[in-house]
Amino acid sequence: MLDKGQGARRLESYVQGAWRAGAGEGKPLADAATGETHALISSDGLDFAGALDWGRETGGAALRRLTIHERALMLRAIGQKLMEMKDEFHAESLVTGATPKDAWPDIEGGIGTMLTFASKARRELPNTKVLTEGAVEGLSRDGSFLGQHILTPLRGVAIHINAFNFPVWGMLEKIAPALIAGMPCLVKPASQTAYLTELVVRRMLAMDILPDGALQLVCGGVGDLLDHVDGQDVVTFTGSAATGQKLRSHPAIVANSVRFTMEADSLNASILGPDAGPGTPEFDLFVKEVQREMTSKAGQKCTAIRRVLVPVQHEAAVIEALSALLAKTAVGLPGDANARMGALASQGDRDSVREKIAAIAREAEIVCGDPDRASVISGDAAKGAFLNPVLLRCADPMAASAPHEIEAFGPVATVMAYDGIDQAVALARKGKGSLVSSVFTNDPDVAAEAVLGVASFHGRVMIGNRDSAKSSTGHGSPLAPLVHGGPGRAGGGEEMGGMRGVKHFMQRTAVQGAPRLLSAVTGQWVQGAPVREDLHPFRKSLAELRIGDRIVTGRRVVTEDDVEHFARFTGDTFYAHMDSAAAKANPFFEDRVAHGYLIASFAAGLFVEPSPGPVLANYGVDNLRFLTPVYFGDSLQVQLTCKEINPRENAVYGEVRWDCRVSNQNDEVVAQYDVLTMVAKEWPVRES
Amino acid sequence: MLDKGQGARRLESYVQGAWRAGAGEGKPLADAATGETHALISSDGLDFAGALDWGRETGGAALRRLTIHERALMLRAIGQKLMEMKDEFHAESLVTGATPKDAWPDIEGGIGTMLTFASKARRELPNTKVLTEGAVEGLSRDGSFLGQHILTPLRGVAIHINAFNFPVWGMLEKIAPALIAGMPCLVKPASQTAYLTELVVRRMLAMDILPDGALQLVCGGVGDLLDHVDGQDVVTFTGSAATGQKLRSHPAIVANSVRFTMEADSLNASILGPDAGPGTPEFDLFVKEVQREMTSKAGQKCTAIRRVLVPVQHEAAVIEALSALLAKTAVGLPGDANARMGALASQGDRDSVREKIAAIAREAEIVCGDPDRASVISGDAAKGAFLNPVLLRCADPMAASAPHEIEAFGPVATVMAYDGIDQAVALARKGKGSLVSSVFTNDPDVAAEAVLGVASFHGRVMIGNRDSAKSSTGHGSPLAPLVHGGPGRAGGGEEMGGMRGVKHFMQRTAVQGAPRLLSAVTGQWVQGAPVREDLHPFRKSLAELRIGDRIVTGRRVVTEDDVEHFARFTGDTFYAHMDSAAAKANPFFEDRVAHGYLIASFAAGLFVEPSPGPVLANYGVDNLRFLTPVYFGDSLQVQLTCKEINPRENAVYGEVRWDCRVSNQNDEVVAQYDVLTMVAKEWPVRES
Repeated sequence: MLDKGQGARRLESYVQGAWRAGAGEGKPLADAATGETHALISSDGLDFAGALDWGRETGGAALRRLTIHERALMLRAIGQKLMEMKDEFHAESLVTGATPKDAWPDIEGGIGTMLTFASKARRELPNTKVLTEGAVEGLSRDGSFLGQHILTPLRGVAIHINAFNFPVWGMLEKIAPALIAGMPCLVKPASQTAYLTELVVRRMLAMDILPDGALQLVCGGVGDLLDHVDGQDVVTFTGSAATGQKLRSHPAIVANSVRFTMEADSLNASILGPDAGPGTPEFDLFVKEVQREMTSKAGQKCTAIRRVLVPVQHEAAVIEALSALLAKTAVGLPGDANARMGALASQGDRDSVREKIAAIAREAEIVCGDPDRASVISGDAAKGAFLNPVLLRCADPMAASAPHEIEAFGPVATVMAYDGIDQAVALARKGKGSLVSSVFTNDPDVAAEAVLGVASFHGRVMIGNRDSAKSSTGHGSPLAPLVHGGPGRAGGGEEMGGMRGVKHFMQRTAVQGAPRLLSAVTGQWVQGAPVREDLHPFRKSLAELRIGDRIVTGRRVVTEDDVEHFARFTGDTFYAHMDSAAAKANPFFEDRVAHGYLIASFAAGLFVEPSPGPVLANYGVDNLRFLTPVYFGDSLQVQLTCKEINPRENAVYGEVRWDCRVSNQNDEVVAQYDVLTMVAKEWPVRES
Repeated sequence: MLDKGQGARRLESYVQGAWRAGAGEGKPLADAATGETHALISSDGLDFAGALDWGRETGGAALRRLTIHERALMLRAIGQKLMEMKDEFHAESLVTGATPKDAWPDIEGGIGTMLTFASKARRELPNTKVLTEGAVEGLSRDGSFLGQHILTPLRGVAIHINAFNFPVWGMLEKIAPALIAGMPCLVKPASQTAYLTELVVRRMLAMDILPDGALQLVCGGVGDLLDHVDGQDVVTFTGSAATGQKLRSHPAIVANSVRFTMEADSLNASILGPDAGPGTPEFDLFVKEVQREMTSKAGQKCTAIRRVLVPVQHEAAVIEALSALLAKTAVGLPGDANARMGALASQGDRDSVREKIAAIAREAEIVCGDPDRASVISGDAAKGAFLNPVLLRCADPMAASAPHEIEAFGPVATVMAYDGIDQAVALARKGKGSLVSSVFTNDPDVAAEAVLGVASFHGRVMIGNRDSAKSSTGHGSPLAPLVHGGPGRAGGGEEMGGMRGVKHFMQRTAVQGAPRLLSAVTGQWVQGAPVREDLHPFRKSLAELRIGDRIVTGRRVVTEDDVEHFARFTGDTFYAHMDSAAAKANPFFEDRVAHGYLIASFAAGLFVEPSPGPVLANYGVDNLRFLTPVYFGDSLQVQLTCKEINPRENAVYGEVRWDCRVSNQNDEVVAQYDVLTMVAKEWPVRES
């Protein structure tokens, strides 16, 4: 249990296999809403070089011994247990100034993101240690020299330097893809809210699910950590652009070409479409969304709406409606059920926001809110870092720079009027690269023009309209399946995006060689690699089946009767099969041709082994191409070769992908595709 | 024509729509083999900020108006014309010191790379302006909120800062993917050999195929160019690590998170497998490959073999065989047909190589060659930058650092003995990241262990053995379909890799929204977007067909007779279709099920419009999944919806992708797939 009620808690770091306190008394961390010291933090004296080595050697080696699905299953187990502990995390989260509603995306959202990664990895990636990517590339005419891209985990440590505003999500969304990739992590939360991250890491490590060295935590400064990074490490950073740029230029990062990913706060815009005037559902959705983005987490979100772009004819209406909503936003103690908005993270943060508002106000006017006086329904406005929402309006946004450049990291936004979608796009681009924009419209032309206009400046663009009013996850929410990060001011990074995020922690390598040797590296059979033709491969369970196991079938002649019969039976009397003159007029055919589905059906008739056996089901077909027309009298033969084998971790079977080539009497391939089957691990099936 | 025979040629830059000479007399560039001044170069006084603006505005806008296939066809036309002019380029290339054989990968290789990109783009990418990537992600349970990643061209300029050793290839391999992506380019060749790049650009621009602003050239220094880059620009650099690191830390690049790609020279290793002793084909291939890599382009290749890793028991044999080959390598004038090796690029380069050899020799001994005395069969050893090959041997490579760290950019390599594959892998990794390694072995276990051991330190790994002896493109050749670039010392970049290379010049953006609006952005129909059910869509040519055009078919009941009949007809008597008891024992089925191919065949029978019409052929099926078993008595219905339309540029037809969903009487989807067809642009087909 945490040492509660006995004064400030002393945070520790978990490095080199042990929880360690930094030297000295530690820096005090205040409760955002009360100003009382909640925790003490220090990483002084820790051996950062040793921590990296320990991660690389102990943690990396252990993770690389596991398959991708095994790693994903660990994360699923951890995520499920964390979800059971969420009340404890919510209690600790109040100290950050966030209301329980604000904490939801951090705590449940963070754990959910980890669970989504765990689930997607098992669904979308094979159960292997090496990934292949893209097609096998033929590099010689005779097929004796091939190329294939593989992905293998980088052999360093993924160092995650996180922001204060998402102490849980910020950690979990980064360690999930890294651990699935097979890379150990070292997490360095922002000091301000590190107590919550530390608590979650304590709970995770106590589960004893992750191998030793897979996860380390540094509470406090990074010391000389970055001096020791090398070309196999990855550094990710979320936070202010200034700090990010300093890190990106760090001599060791530059000298070793260390993969560096940065997500910086940006001047995200939301655009109200010209069609979405007062009285439309989109107008109401827009106003509510701007208010929500300004006030949730007291506007301390890197994705929050900072620039409110509205058609000039609707500007007054937007300001009126938005001001009304903002004015009645109750600010108070995060634990107060009547408070809609809690405190900023610290007094220092509030001072900074006030300075930024003053700077923006040189080119804009405040139309709602008073930055200098906090009005609260509970708590002490003098001790807590409270601030009521502030809305500004910029009269000449095409000429102004401050509202496009200065980010007040709090409940602050600026309304700017535009004249025509072109100008809305131009204004959005003045942010010089953002994490996200949104467009509220019900007009598909407006959606297309605005989204494509701003796309290259953004990592994500959300369209809001009546159809998704209830289902939309909103402007501000990065989602595990979608990329998060934006160009330019937003840092130029890319995270998450489903399994793309896993690949960020792997090295892509082109492997070239003869089929036999290439196949040995990738674990997948490729054309030209050795084959084994003994027992029919459908008689083999996964215990016996190996890549390269093949059946070459007998031949079957396709007759005119077959085609006529198939056409009548299925109803597919397409002219190319039935009408010689029409077929000849077709640029692809010289005469009537057999149905593609007839070829695939006959092929199955040729390759299937009918008696009960370990092959349980044909669950699909991939990349089927009909390469050569089949005319009456052509004789078909099938080569079916086992190409990939993926045993499932928690099942009595696994997926087997077969290379299927149907050729004619001239050895021309008439159809080529992958046949997908489920095959039992043992035969007879042994229920585990 | 070039101003030949009238003394040194004055190079010009092509910026802001005109060929412009820099201020001053220009710096003299010497013929590598004779020392005579061949050209004068200066970019002083050029308006670099103006060049960037001109590229962004004029060039970018023009390229973005074209589709991907239109851009690719321009490159094909340019490549074909350049190939006709290759003799002129070869003549100019002699001045660089390269023999015609050495110039082949630069000139024919460069043009071929461009043509490969042009061809792959039309084969592998759609004929659109926006790319989609990956699956549509369902973000809500009711399907009213979806996500999809799109790729759009960055709206800046791709600035390519190239190395001296591949003045043609270095330009073409970078501008090809950028131009296909829709990004204008500014090429800055290394001054030393800029005369050849300038000549090729003159010929390209004279063709008048590229739109204004799509390609600019700077001959001379970059001046203040980089001060003006922003977050929509891309900077690529090929050359020395020191210069690359300086550029990467440039304030404007750091401040704007400019996408920066670096390919630096690296200490590439080649590993002889323990199985590949003297007398094996792999031994001979290895020795020949090392010699070729050391001597082609006089070793001035960023991919050349610098570290020769051999089993300790074969070390003496390798040194003997390799020294014999190296000693008889004739060095002389590049135009001399008897010369196998020409000159280094300049006297300065030779001085640098000699210094590096001396530095390596502190931890190794020279076993072949004399760096201090050049022996030539033609030319003047005092005036030309000649150097004979030098082979070193390091006795304690696990302890040494110089041979792993110091790159002599010339005909120089170091032999190091290893004991066991583990140690070979450890030695290869001591290069701290390389562009490429190779492994010569005929043993699949050695191939797998060595390749997977070194993979995360490399962008490419080549396996050499007897099977690919004749077809292999060799250790040193980057290929258009494969990624080029490596982690760590190699710069951390990634280029080419087929269509991956195009995406390096595009921004990936996650777009979220309701199906109707998302579909308007991507130009692809998604489930839930509007549909039109009027005329059967197979009656519509591309002139009439729109995404969302749909046919909902009548129903067909699948009977036991149908399944029996299909089984007898095709020969597919798999037990799950025929044997009730066996089917029930199967974990996926409750009773006998219809064949998957029967479902697909019946589906075609339901959706096909049989009379001659604009649909010309079904050329394939993608992502077919059988989602729900079909039992006797189930009734099938098909929804076939036009999803993507890709008119081909040079044909009377185009590809149409149809979303095909087969459902049962309970509205459960039993099968889902994409049907791929060729459809005429007009009906009746009008031959153009």
